[in-house]
Formats: sequence, C-alpha cells, structure tokens
Amino acid sequence: MKLSDLGEFPFLRRLRGRMPADPRVVLGVGDDCAALSLSGTTLLTTDAMIENVHFRREWTSFSILGEKAFTVNASDIAAMGGEPTFALLSLGVPQECEVEDLEAFFDGFVRAAGTCGAALIGGNMSAAPCLMFSVTLLGRTLHNLVTRGGAHVGEDLYVTGTLGDAALGLRMLQEGKTTAEAQVVKTRFLRPTARLAIGREMAARGLATAMIDVSDGLLQDLGHLCEESRVGAAVEAQKLPLSEAYRALLGERDWSLALTGGEDYELLFAATTEQRTAIDILAKNSNCPITRIGRVVSAAEGLNVHGPDGTAYTPAHVGYDHFRLT
Amino acid sequence: MKLSDLGEFPFLRRLRGRMPADPRVVLGVGDDCAALSLSGTTLLTTDAMIENVHFRREWTSFSILGEKAFTVNASDIAAMGGEPTFALLSLGVPQECEVEDLEAFFDGFVRAAGTCGAALIGGNMSAAPCLMFSVTLLGRTLHNLVTRGGAHVGEDLYVTGTLGDAALGLRMLQEGKTTAEAQVVKTRFLRPTARLAIGREMAARGLATAMIDVSDGLLQDLGHLCEESRVGAAVEAQKLPLSEAYRALLGERDWSLALTGGEDYELLFAATTEQRTAIDILAKNSNCPITRIGRVVSAAEGLNVHGPDGTAYTPAHVGYDHFRLT
Repeated sequence: MKLSDLGEFPFLRRLRGRMPADPRVVLGVGDDCAALSLSGTTLLTTDAMIENVHFRREWTSFSILGEKAFTVNASDIAAMGGEPTFALLSLGVPQECEVEDLEAFFDGFVRAAGTCGAALIGGNMSAAPCLMFSVTLLGRTLHNLVTRGGAHVGEDLYVTGTLGDAALGLRMLQEGKTTAEAQVVKTRFLRPTARLAIGREMAARGLATAMIDVSDGLLQDLGHLCEESRVGAAVEAQKLPLSEAYRALLGERDWSLALTGGEDYELLFAATTEQRTAIDILAKNSNCPITRIGRVVSAAEGLNVHGPDGTAYTPAHVGYDHFRLT
Repeated sequence: MKLSDLGEFPFLRRLRGRMPADPRVVLGVGDDCAALSLSGTTLLTTDAMIENVHFRREWTSFSILGEKAFTVNASDIAAMGGEPTFALLSLGVPQECEVEDLEAFFDGFVRAAGTCGAALIGGNMSAAPCLMFSVTLLGRTLHNLVTRGGAHVGEDLYVTGTLGDAALGLRMLQEGKTTAEAQVVKTRFLRPTARLAIGREMAARGLATAMIDVSDGLLQDLGHLCEESRVGAAVEAQKLPLSEAYRALLGERDWSLALTGGEDYELLFAATTEQRTAIDILAKNSNCPITRIGRVVSAAEGLNVHGPDGTAYTPAHVGYDHFRLT
C-alpha cells in the first residue's frame, strides 16, 4: 500500500501500536511533545541519512536502513562513553513510498534501539523529494565525559576494529562487486556497529584521555581530536588495522581508505602509556581488536603519517567533507 | 562564497564562534555529543522544514527561514505549557549553497531561540538535493503537563489568535499577490508566532484540560485532541476568529481555510465553563485574542461544524496531511 493511500495520521497510529511500552517515559509518541524525567548528565546528538547521499535504496533494505540510522547516532554516544536512552526520528518521505517499507524501516530502527536499551519516543513525518532520516539520540553517562579535548603529548593513539572497510564496501556497492571479500566490506558499510561497550569501559575506567568516533575518515577525525586537544599526532601507516577482506581487495600497503574512508564508526582514542596493559586486556575481553596506531605529538609537529620506512606518507585527501571534493 | 569552497568543517568552526555561551551547557557544539545537566520534566519535539514542500527560497530570506524552523518547534513546546531550553539542528544543504545564506539561517535560528531563552547546543550538516532543516527542541515545564488527552464532555473549546491566515498567506505567495491584505497573511505564513506565554499560563494556572497547537488545520488538530480525549466536538463556524485581512480577502462567510488551513501555530484547548472569566482576563492581559469556538461533546456525536443557521457545515477536507491529497 502506498503511503498516499493510507495517509500520514493513520500510518502514525499503526506505528504507535508497534512501539514497546517504556516505564521511563512520562509521555511518549502521540502528543505535541514527548516528556521524560531525566537526571544526571544527558548526552545529545543528531545525525541524518539522505537518499543518494548516504545510501541508495537498491543497495539495502528498509529494515537495515533503520538499523543504520540508529547506529550512526549511537556511535556518537559511544564516543562520549555513554549509553543510548531515547530517540526521536524525523522522516522525509516521497509520496509514492510503500507503507510496508516504512514499517520495515521503523522496525529496524526500534530493534537496533532496543538492543541498546533505548526507546523511540517521538518524531515527525513530512513529504520530501527523497528519503531523509534525521535522528536525535539521547544518552546518559554515569562517568566523567570523555571529550575530544583531553589528549596530551606523549600519549598513545588507539583505534578499535579495522579501518577503511566501510569506504571500501561503498566502493564495492558502487562498482557492483559480489565476491566474498566484497560482501564482507559491503556489510561493514551497510550494517556498522557502534562500539558502545568499549566506549563505556573507557569512560568507566578512565582509560582514554580523549575519544572520537571515526565517521569521516581517520585523518579527518584525528584532526578534530588534535584540534580540540591542541596537539598533533604521528600515525604509523603499517600499524593501521586492516581486515583480511581489505588486504585481499586493496593489498597490504594501500592505506588510502584506512586513513581517509568514512563510516567505519570505530573509536579513536588517546591514552597514557601506563594504560597499555589494561587496554590489551580490554581488547581481549571485549573480543574486539584495539590497535595502537601512533602517538600524540606537539601541535607544532602537526598531523603526520609515516610509512614503514619512516618517510612521510601523504594521502591525496584527509577524509570526507560533504562540501569539498578534494 | 560557496559552501563547497569553504568546506563543512571550516564553516562549522565559523558558526561555533558566533554562538553565545550558556552556563547550563556542560558541553556544547564541537564534540561527538552535547552534554546537559537536566532535571524535572524534559519535553522533546522534532519537526522539519523541507524546500519546495514547506517553503520556496524566493518567498523568504534565510534569516526568516531560521526563525521559522525554531518557531514551529517552539509551538509544540507551547502546546504542552512548557518553555524551550535547548535545540539541535540537522541541516541538509545543496553543494552550491552560499556560506552567507547559511550563516543568515543560523543567525535567524539562534535569534529566535535566544528570544525564548533557548540555546543551540548541537547539530550536523550533510549534503542534500534540497534545503532541509530538521530541528529537535527540548523544553521544560514546572507544572502539570497539558496533554491532548484531558478534555471532557461539556467543556468549552477555545483558540488563540486568528485562524486560516497562514494558509491564505501561502496561497497569496503561490499566486504572487502583493496587496496590503496579502502582505499581512503572507507574514503570518512566513513568520509565525509560538504562543509560549499563553501556553505557560494555561499550564501554570490549570486553565486548560487539553491542548494542542494548530499546525495541520483546526479540524485535523481538533480531531487529534478529540481522539486522545475520547470525545467529540461541536464547532460554531461563525465564532471562528478571522483576521481583517482574511475577511477582506475571502469574505465573512468563507470558513474553509480557518477550518482546514495549516501552519497557524495557534493554541487550541478545552477548558471547563468555570474558567470563562479567567480566560477572558488572560486574553486581555496577554494582548492576544482567545476565542470560544464551540464545545466538547460525546465521542458518539463526532466532530461537527455548524453554520450560522445551525445547519451542519461540511468542509471539503479536514486539514493538511502530507500524504493525502483529498
């Protein structure tokens, strides 16, 4: 059934019937505002996914789009060491959209939120020339905030998981590749993971001095961390964690996408050298690689990448910027 | 300068420098999340404005678009009897957009927020095929929530201000009309007012039993209030408050847009008959008309509009639905 046959308000009523009840919500979907009783430190973030900018419909399913719309926001909460609590969803939808597709999106979103203990509490829906999903996610933290601004010269730099897979997956989708390796990296692009458990441990145990999620490419996001901390960074290219699929598709020595590819949603953080053992143990216990990729240097030294022979490695561009093509 | 010449991150840095400091904010724009220390009841709402759906660039200025993007959300806070506190802004922007235009949008938004004591604390920006402004607004209330669900049979129905002007203004914009009356209603469409002070008084003094803002047309929104309260409503058409400009443009007896036109952002509420004097005094003191337009009847009687001779008045459609054309 087309959304234009059902209408906005009957559709919203249908959605409302599918939402799990949540005792923390004073007033949920279906009034002018949602109402919550919050205390402590509340985290807030907002991020959007726009058709033909962030995704194409033929690459994925509505259910998986719903998951990702939640996860990219949850990643920002992870980067502060918090846990997601409540979400608002602002949808832009073309007239001809199928009700079943939107319900699948919604179900994917609510499922991903529920997995993290978060609830959808409000939203709105509007006609639009393309699909647009704008999410606002709230979170909470019981610990000190881990900001981008706390790194100091001499500390280590770490990253979780592997880098560049999502950008490589995007390329495989664009090129229509279907090999086993291509499928692996495509999944990294389509179904990213927010590193919530690791982010939380970092905050709870005071392991990281500064943290950010890698959404616009390692160098871009490392640049933000350095700027806020007023430091520089020296990254060793050969230490960058590359997946088997990445190595198979691009080779051992092509670090371009690991340095500049967006949407990995891994955590990048700085930590004092005293924490090396604790971080190794955390990696083992959480079943997620955490790799030391370089160190914090002075702001005057800037942001450098060194190749295996020690020489400077200069990538063609630093990362993803929606409005610059270089 | 084009945004594509400056780049997303340098632009965001420029914006950040223009944002007033706010002592309530633990961590503002410029990290993965904003962080707030909230207590009491927190209200949350989200609403979007999309180019060529909600506005056309040639009708207005970026500064006024920024104001309106804030105000349409503030109206939802008003309808709960709350006051706006913090906003997040998710922008979709075409590549060729001028930096100066976006700064004007931003300034308009921050100005409108500041007028209500609210602060912009976070956001994101993405490439998009058209301009899209998605806002999440937080609010607070120190009083009982005024929901849509508290109206009872026998109560009065009221509306603030005048109805139908915004929809008429939209028509004047579409038709390129420039008479004095046309300008008045165009301004109602382009620069709406959120009835925050009246909403707050309603909550603080327990005057309203149920309340909603009129954003999709009186009948549509009255229908929502009736549905949530499980009641019906009888509206007297000749009591609907029409502006001088509306009367001049459409005549005294054309209630079509007053009943069904969207975007007035007036408050519609139910109150017991004991409150009539108190409401009249509030209208006088707040310098805003508050008009009794009908009464709450049983759900079985449904939602009816009566003409001056007592006969049923049946509008061609009930209000604005993004996805139904009838």
